[in-house]
Amino acid sequence: MPELRKDPVVGRWVIISTERSRRPTNFTTTVPSRTSTACPFCPGSEDMTPPEVYAYRPEHPLPNGPGWQVRVVPNKFPALQIEGTLDRRGEGLYDKMNGIGAHEVVIEGPEHDQDLADLSVEHIEQILLAYRERVIDLHRDRRFRYVLIFKNHGAQAGATLEHTHTQLIATSIVPKSIQEELEGSRRYYELKERCVFCDIVAQETAENNGRRVVSMNDGFVVLEPYAPRFPFETWILPRKHDDSFHMLSEDGEFRDLAAILKDTLQRLNRALERPPFNFVIHTAPVSETSLEHYHWHLEIMPTLTRVAGFEIGSGFYINPTPPEDAAQYLRELAVQD
Amino acid sequence: MPELRKDPVVGRWVIISTERSRRPTNFTTTVPSRTSTACPFCPGSEDMTPPEVYAYRPEHPLPNGPGWQVRVVPNKFPALQIEGTLDRRGEGLYDKMNGIGAHEVVIEGPEHDQDLADLSVEHIEQILLAYRERVIDLHRDRRFRYVLIFKNHGAQAGATLEHTHTQLIATSIVPKSIQEELEGSRRYYELKERCVFCDIVAQETAENNGRRVVSMNDGFVVLEPYAPRFPFETWILPRKHDDSFHMLSEDGEFRDLAAILKDTLQRLNRALERPPFNFVIHTAPVSETSLEHYHWHLEIMPTLTRVAGFEIGSGFYINPTPPEDAAQYLRELAVQD
Repeated sequence: MPELRKDPVVGRWVIISTERSRRPTNFTTTVPSRTSTACPFCPGSEDMTPPEVYAYRPEHPLPNGPGWQVRVVPNKFPALQIEGTLDRRGEGLYDKMNGIGAHEVVIEGPEHDQDLADLSVEHIEQILLAYRERVIDLHRDRRFRYVLIFKNHGAQAGATLEHTHTQLIATSIVPKSIQEELEGSRRYYELKERCVFCDIVAQETAENNGRRVVSMNDGFVVLEPYAPRFPFETWILPRKHDDSFHMLSEDGEFRDLAAILKDTLQRLNRALERPPFNFVIHTAPVSETSLEHYHWHLEIMPTLTRVAGFEIGSGFYINPTPPEDAAQYLRELAVQD
Repeated sequence: MPELRKDPVVGRWVIISTERSRRPTNFTTTVPSRTSTACPFCPGSEDMTPPEVYAYRPEHPLPNGPGWQVRVVPNKFPALQIEGTLDRRGEGLYDKMNGIGAHEVVIEGPEHDQDLADLSVEHIEQILLAYRERVIDLHRDRRFRYVLIFKNHGAQAGATLEHTHTQLIATSIVPKSIQEELEGSRRYYELKERCVFCDIVAQETAENNGRRVVSMNDGFVVLEPYAPRFPFETWILPRKHDDSFHMLSEDGEFRDLAAILKDTLQRLNRALERPPFNFVIHTAPVSETSLEHYHWHLEIMPTLTRVAGFEIGSGFYINPTPPEDAAQYLRELAVQD
C-alpha cells in the first residue's frame, strides 16, 4: 500500500510508492528505454490496458475494442491505490495516510505517431471533454479532494510511453503548488476584493501593454508569466473568471481552449524544435461552492534547461530568458496548419 | 542588469538573468559540453578567474598564484551583479528590484580529478571554514538578506565545470524553500514551544526507533527524512540547536561536520555508483538575533530520477524509495578510506 506522508516542517505531502520500490541498482539508467514491443495504447491492443472508464467512439460503440478517438483507462502501474480507506494517523510528530487515489491515462488518439499538437481542433476538444467527464466522475468519490490533470511529453519530460497521452491523479490531498496559489490568491482577494488572476489578465492585455502576451481568442489569453521559473514557461488563462476547468461551457469554450492549446503547442514546437514539455491544469479543489479568489489555468513548461537539485532544494530559480523576449519570439511565429 | 521579480500569486522571487539571455536555438543541447580547454580552477590558471576573495594557503602566502588548498573567487559569469542599489519598484501589480548580489565559487582543492568525497577530513574542514569566512564577510553587506551555499556535482546535477567546487549566492531576498521552513518551524514553535528540527532529531534517534538514521557522531546525525521528495534524499542535522551554519565552533564542530559529510558522500558513492548530486545548506537569514525555532542543516539530493515538470508544476512528488529502505541500505555500507 503506498503512503501519503507529510513533511512536518513545510507541510508538503509526498507519495511514498512502496509498491514501486527500487533498489539502488535500478537507478543506473535514468532515461526511459524506448518501447521495443507493441504499444499498449495503439488500437488493437486494448486488452493490454485495464478496461476503459471512458471513451469517445463516434462510430464504433463497443467498449475495449478499436474504433475510439479518445480512450481513458486506469494506469496499469498506479502511483496510488483505488481501494481502501484513508486511515489518517500519526507516527510521533509525523502525519500520514494510506495512498488512496485514482491514477488514469487519457490516450489522446489512435495514431501512434501523432502528437497532441498534430491533432485537429475538433479532436483536441474531445480530449478536453474526456478530462471533464473524468473530473466530474472522480469528484463523486468523497475520499478525493483534488483531481490533477497533467501531461508529460517526451522522455526528458518524464514520459515513459511515446504514444501521446495525459494522466489524471485523484488524491485526498491538495498538491502543494495549488495550495500555495489558493492561499496567495485568497490573501490578494482579502486585500483588494479582486481575483489576482483577473488582474493579471487585465494588466497583461491592456492596450499599452501586451509585451508578455503570445496570443488571444474569445475565451483565452496565452502569456509568458511575469516571474517565470523556466524559459518559455507559458500559461493559458481563461479571460472569464472561473475557479474550475470542468465548469467550461460546451457552447464554444471547450472549442476555444482546444484551438488556442493547439496553436500554443505548435508555436512552441516551431520555436524550440519540438521540445519535450509538461503541462499541468491548475484548478480548484473538489468543493460545493465556487471560489471568488481562484482562477483556473493551464501551465506549460518546456523542458529546456535541466532543473538542478539546487533550484529544487532552495526554491530559487535563475531564468536566462526574459518572458518579454520569449513572448515576442512566440508571437512572431505565424503558424500554418 | 539582471532583475529579481516576484510572482504575484505565490510570492516566489526569481532571477531573470538578462545578461545571460538565450535565444531559442541555444537550448538545443541540454547537456553541458565537457571542458576541452584548460580548466580555470586548476593551479597555474589563477589568472583565468577574477582575483580571489579568500584562500587557504598553508605554505605559499602570495594570492592569485599556486600553492592554495582552497580558493574562493567571484563567479566569472555571475547570476547577480555586485554593484548597484536594489531600487525596489512596482510595475502595475508586479514587484521587482535590481538583481544585486554576490555570486562566488569555492574551488575545493587543487587536484582536478579529486571529488569532495575523496579529500581528507582536514581538507574538507578547511572548505567548510572557507564557507564560514565568506558568509561572515557577505553578511556585512547591508543589501543582502541571505547567503545560499550549494553544490552541483556532475553534469546531470547542473555542474558546468568538472573541477570540484561549491557556489555561494548572496541575495537581497530569502529563497522560497528557506522561507517556507522558517514559517513552518515558527508555527510549530508557537504551538509547542519547541524547535521542530530538535523534535525530529529526538524522535529519529530515540532508542526504539532509528529506522531512518544513517549514521551519527558527536555533533551530527545523518538521516533520510520522513517525507522525502527524492530517492536517497539525505539530511545532515546538527544535534545541538543552532539556527546558523556559520555559528559552528572551531573546537571540533567543523571537524565533526567534515567527517560526517565525507562519510555520507562516500556511502552515497558506494550505494549509487558515484551519482551526480546537489547539496544546499539551509541556514537562517542574515539577522542580529538567533532564532529559537529554526535549525540549520544540510540537504543532499542525488540526481537519480529526472524531475518532471509535472512535479515542479504541481509540487506533488512521487518517491519510489521509502526512506527506511534507503537508510538501511546506506547504514549497512561499511566505508573504508
